[in-house]
This record gives sequence, C-alpha cells and structure tokens, in this order.
Amino acid sequence: MLSEDTKTVLYNMLSKLATLPAEAIRPEMKLFGRDLALDSLSGVELVTWLEQQFGITLEDLDVDLSALDSVGSLLRFINGQISERWTGQLEKVAAAARLKEGRFGVEQVLLHIREHPGATSRELAAWCSLPTPTIAALRKELHQAGLVGKEGKGAFLSPKGEALLETFYPSWAGVSASAPEPYGRARQSPLFAELTERCRALLRHRPPADTQLDQAKCLPETAAARALLALENGLLAGRRLAFLGDDDFTSVAVAVLGDMLAEHQAAGPAAITVLDIDERIVNTLTELAEQHSWPLLAYGHDLRRPLPADLLHRHDGFFTDPPYTVTGARLFVSRGVEMCRPEGFTAFLSFAPKGPDEMLAVQADMARMGLYLREIKPGFNRYEGGSLWGNQSHMLVYSSTTKARPLLTTNYEGQLYTAEFRQPTLRQR
Amino acid sequence: MLSEDTKTVLYNMLSKLATLPAEAIRPEMKLFGRDLALDSLSGVELVTWLEQQFGITLEDLDVDLSALDSVGSLLRFINGQISERWTGQLEKVAAAARLKEGRFGVEQVLLHIREHPGATSRELAAWCSLPTPTIAALRKELHQAGLVGKEGKGAFLSPKGEALLETFYPSWAGVSASAPEPYGRARQSPLFAELTERCRALLRHRPPADTQLDQAKCLPETAAARALLALENGLLAGRRLAFLGDDDFTSVAVAVLGDMLAEHQAAGPAAITVLDIDERIVNTLTELAEQHSWPLLAYGHDLRRPLPADLLHRHDGFFTDPPYTVTGARLFVSRGVEMCRPEGFTAFLSFAPKGPDEMLAVQADMARMGLYLREIKPGFNRYEGGSLWGNQSHMLVYSSTTKARPLLTTNYEGQLYTAEFRQPTLRQR
Repeated sequence: MLSEDTKTVLYNMLSKLATLPAEAIRPEMKLFGRDLALDSLSGVELVTWLEQQFGITLEDLDVDLSALDSVGSLLRFINGQISERWTGQLEKVAAAARLKEGRFGVEQVLLHIREHPGATSRELAAWCSLPTPTIAALRKELHQAGLVGKEGKGAFLSPKGEALLETFYPSWAGVSASAPEPYGRARQSPLFAELTERCRALLRHRPPADTQLDQAKCLPETAAARALLALENGLLAGRRLAFLGDDDFTSVAVAVLGDMLAEHQAAGPAAITVLDIDERIVNTLTELAEQHSWPLLAYGHDLRRPLPADLLHRHDGFFTDPPYTVTGARLFVSRGVEMCRPEGFTAFLSFAPKGPDEMLAVQADMARMGLYLREIKPGFNRYEGGSLWGNQSHMLVYSSTTKARPLLTTNYEGQLYTAEFRQPTLRQR
Repeated sequence: MLSEDTKTVLYNMLSKLATLPAEAIRPEMKLFGRDLALDSLSGVELVTWLEQQFGITLEDLDVDLSALDSVGSLLRFINGQISERWTGQLEKVAAAARLKEGRFGVEQVLLHIREHPGATSRELAAWCSLPTPTIAALRKELHQAGLVGKEGKGAFLSPKGEALLETFYPSWAGVSASAPEPYGRARQSPLFAELTERCRALLRHRPPADTQLDQAKCLPETAAARALLALENGLLAGRRLAFLGDDDFTSVAVAVLGDMLAEHQAAGPAAITVLDIDERIVNTLTELAEQHSWPLLAYGHDLRRPLPADLLHRHDGFFTDPPYTVTGARLFVSRGVEMCRPEGFTAFLSFAPKGPDEMLAVQADMARMGLYLREIKPGFNRYEGGSLWGNQSHMLVYSSTTKARPLLTTNYEGQLYTAEFRQPTLRQR
C-alpha cells in the first residue's frame, strides 16, 4: 500500500461504513454521535479494518483517545503510526549498520538513491560523505528491510521504500537530497508562493508585537520558508514539532503546509506544540487551530519555568527565535532539547548575534548541549518594522548527538529579555 | 595615489634610477650588485622617494632586511606596509565605533557601500546585520579617516576608500559583499578557470601521498577555490597567510593567485608560511618558490612540537586540512591560532567528521579556542583517488574573537594520525 493513498483508502472505508459518498467526507466530521454517526457495529468493523490495513491495534488506539474523534484526527493518527514505525525501522537499520548519523543519515542515503537510481556504494559514499563500508552495510540492512533493491552494483528503491520516502520527503514538493543552499532550497519549493500567500492572510491575526518580550514578527515569506525548511529536513509528515515562543506564527505556516500536503494526499504533521508566555498568542493560535482543525496545541507557559512533564521527550524537532541574548538562546534551546526525543532531533535556531564574542558564547553553549551546527543560513529570517537590528537574523540548523542534554532544567531567575539587560534594576522593582 | 598603481609607480622610479626601460624590469631582478645594479647615490634617492611616496622610513626598512633585495621583494614590502596601515586604520575605526567585528566588520560595511553607492545607514544596517547606531558611528569614523563621504543621507566611498578597498577586495576579480554561497563564490570568480589550469600544471609536482600521514591530495580546482576563498575574505593583498600542513599545495594556489593579481597591477600576499612534517613537500615548495620568486617560505616542522618563536602572532589567517581526528583538528588549529595576530584572523578548516559526535567534539574544541563558525561549505573540498571517505570534506570558516587562544601550546605526545588510532601499539614499537 502506498502511504500517500492513506487518505483515499480511509475515506473510501468511511464512505462505505457511513453510506455517504467519499467526496462528501470532511476532516472536521465526527466519527461517532453526529456527522458520520457510526454505530457500534461499524465501529468494530472500523477497528478491525485498521488492524488489517495498517496493523494498528486497539492498544495503539487506547494511547491516543482523540484518535477516533473526527475523520481528520483518525487520518493524522494513522499517519503518525506509519511515521513511528518508519522511524523505528530506520533507527534499527542505522544501529545495525553502525551509522552514527542515525535515522537522518539513512534518509539522506535513501534520498540520494531516489535521485540517482542505480547508484553504486562508492558513489553514495561520495555524495553522503560516508565511508564506503558503512554504505555497504546500510544497503544490506535496507535490503533486508525491503526498502532497497539492487541490480548489479546499483541500488534502487523498492516500491515500499519509494512510497515511504515520498511520504516524508515529497519530491513533487521540491524536496531533494542536493546540497543545502544558504537561503534554503525552501524558497525554491514549488509550494513557496502559495504557502506565503496563505500565510500572509492568516498572519494578519498576529497580535501587535510586545517589544518588552523581544517580539518582532517575521515576514509571511519567512514563516513559509521555515515550514518548508522543516519539510526538506523530513520533519513534517507524521512528525511532532515544538515551537518555543511563537509570536511569528511559524506554527501556523507549518499547519497550513500540512493542509497543502493533505490536499495532495500526503501526510502533514502529527502534532504541533506551541509554548508562549503571551496569552494573546496562545488564544489566537488556539482559535485558528479550532477553526482549521489543525493538530496544534498552544500552551501559555513562561519558559523560565520548568516544562510540564507530559510535553517532554516526544518531539522530533523544534523551532525557536529566542530573545537575542546568550541567556535567551541557552534557556529556550534547553527547553527545546527537553521536549525532543533523545533518539535524534533537529533544532532550528533563529539568532542575530551582537558581535563575534556573543556568537561564540551561543555556539559554545550549543556544543555543551550536545548539538552540532549543520547549516548556517545568513539572513534567512526577515522581520517586519524598524528594529535596530537590521530586520534579519541567521537560521542555524543544529543536529542532536548522543550527548544532547539541556543546560537548564529548573527554574530560571536571571535576566532574559533585552529590556532587562538594558535596565538592570527592572526585576528588583 | 591609487594603490593598484603601486607597481607602475615603483617600476617607473626604478626605470629612472637604473636607466632601463620600465618594460624590461622583472620581479626577480636584484636592486643592488647586479641586474639593476643601483649605486649608493641611487640607493639614497630610492629610500628618500619611498618615504615621500609611501611614508616608508628607514626604520621600517630595517625591520625587513630582504625588502631591498629584489624588485619583487620591494614591491611586496611596499604592499605589506600599505596593508598594515590600512589594517591599523580600520582597527582604529572599529574601536572608535565600538564595532565588535573589528576590521573585518568595517570592510563588510565598505563592501556594501561600494556595491550600493548612496546607501543609507538604515540600509547598511540591514545588509550588514548591524545596529543602525553602530553604522552611524562607523560612518562618522570612516568620514574622518577620509574613506567615506556622504551626499544627503547616502554614503559613498572616497577615491582613497575606493582605491584601498579595491586593493584588498578587487571587484574585477569578482569579490563582492553579497551573501556567501555554500560552495563559495570562489568558484564563480572570473579567475577560477585560469587559476585552476595554472594550479593543475604546478600541482603535478606534488609528491605521492603518504597515507601514514593522512595525506590525500585535493583536486587542482579545490586548491584554486581555496585561494579565491582567501581573496573574497580579504586575506590576499598584503596579508600573511599560514598553512599548517600543505600536502595539497594550497599555498601554491595562493602564490599563483598572487601572480595573477600582480599581472593586473594588484597586490598579492605579503608572506606565505608553510609548515609540514614531510621534507619532500618542504623541498618541492621551496624549489617552486625560488623558481617563481614567490614570497613563500616552507619549514620542515612536526606540528606535535611547539612552533618556532619567530613564526608566532604574525599571520592574518591560516589554512589547515588536518588528520581527520578530533585531536588532529585540535592540534593543527591550536598551532594556527598561535601563528596569527591576536587582533583578528580567519581560520579555514577542512574537515570530514566521522559522525555527529565527532563533529560536535571538533565544534566544542573550536569554541574553547575562542573561534566561532561563520560559514559551513559542505563538499567544498574534493580529493584525488579512492579514499574511503567519499573524497570530499567540508570547508569550515571560523572567525577569531577576543577569546582566541590555542588549546595546545607545548609538546603533544599522544596519537594523531588515523593509522595510529587504528594500530594503538604503533607508537610503542
């Protein structure tokens, strides 16, 4: 079964159970009670079918009680399950081949095979900057997993490998394995223009910037580019993304990109978690999420306080555009690291340093947190209005290592926002 | 006086003193004794002229006894003096405007003014990612230094500013202020093709790779791209560059680029210092330098030993492509940091990590040495032959901060080369 058909397959099944044309089914429709109004017999049939079709058991469903709430939540749940199995499978492959880059490394190899069908181990080694023996070991594991076949010396994706890779790195959306570009391939995506326009409309709902909280809203095209950056890093389909502070509404861009992917029968994000100190932002995001049936949950939270336990260790990556102080980066990234799966994640840090020494201090902190810098995109982020800082910042893409750990886990009582550094007595008053 | 005319002006003066047509003068010609064979009266006239024309005093000449050796050495000496004054002037401007980025930061602002004559402080702030008040302070200092004028709100380079900037960042060579690209603008330079061809011929002299020393020779186009990378970072004209290990002969590419710049009446490097453990490399480089009258000195030196005192603190940047071990990077970069001027320098580190944890360890070491990562160019370096490592490596561009210091300064007795890690008993035998 091709995973991009999940939606079609599910809608067909629901249409049969509810005796309703598949075209009439909408994501916001409830499965039980009203809308599709399935009876208990249909419910049993649905659960049995889920197990046969996707290997999803009743125990799986028990973990997420909202899975059977609406059509959209069920589709997201299925995509999340497929994604988790894919992740687990690739992590096993990486471990068996002793690939230190983990799942992301395996995905890079698969992307190169997709772009160059018939590639030899030697060629793959060159393109992926990996030793040839590691590639050979990987190919063996991927072959056993049924994801990659061979013909002579050349490697080919199996239909299953092709379908799964397409779910996470949709080629029609311009996601490829070619070398990263400074402003990001993101902006070259065929989805960029439409996503920017859709963001432009929605980002009008952002509350006015509160400069005491170092808020400065990014341009709609920046929010769109960030969402596409997550996509090209394989962090959209069936993944869980966290946003540590989001006055930019980047989470909205990710949710909208998820909708656009769904319109192409591809999987969007499994969960979007936003933490922000500003209740205006939390309320607006919550309203938008309800209106659009997004898998987005926004929490009012002061990141100086420890995180709620149920948000820890469950995300595949996070975005943060913290106060541009060394402390701001250290604190927000610490919280982000805690929210992510220790098995591997990606951190997207927007930052504009005040000189080399501050950049050094931030980079030293990131290294202490076991994150290594994989890409620097100067001027990737552009902001509205007349800030002193030239209205742009770097996008720094960090990868986790086995040494990933937060520097701060308890309450933080020191200075954080720029205004506090400028007025050292503020917190004493 | 336009500084790119230095060569013309000097050759005209020497032609007058030696009663020889200017076209007949060659860099390798001796000033005294033979060739131009100036007498003592002409010598006095030359020294007086140097002071009037360039402000170079007898005391300046005393510091470098080889300055008056040949036509080429005198030209290099003059360019070096111009470069040192420019550096000193820009460092003063940076200090007065409290620009933490130092000279390199001022040069970035000047480059943007060159590209956008009439730019406002606000525009410059956006392009350079600096606060508007800092730009305003800088413009005031640059105005006082006679480098930048204004018209309304717009900034313009003065003829002097234009000429000096052209010396260090020649626009005809494709050097610009636009955002860096992953493979480097280097390869888009109009000089790239010719430089690569000239390198291809000269790099044939490289001795066969000694894999016990982790040697793997880069392609001629990589050597050329590295030299152009130094140029676009303002590290060619009148600068001193160090090479910590150079089986690649990148120093040759830099020397050849210097020749090409000289053919365009522009200044090449003041000094190229190469340290290598391999006497074959030292001897070949020394022979080539003599043949071509390059300002290149190669020393046989095991970098596990401390550096000779007279090489310390005098370079503006260094290249190293160390053994791809954490220790290799730490040791070679430590030595490089010691060779550079503490006021500010650039480090070009070629490296291919064996997985995220190793990349993290290297990045953590660099941060401990007070260097911050400014650019990551994946796959910038390509190598000959069939190494296991896919024949390519990253180019990492680091900038120094006020915290720059070497991690290792004494003898290093541990393992260094990959072969030693693979055969842990090697050093005991």
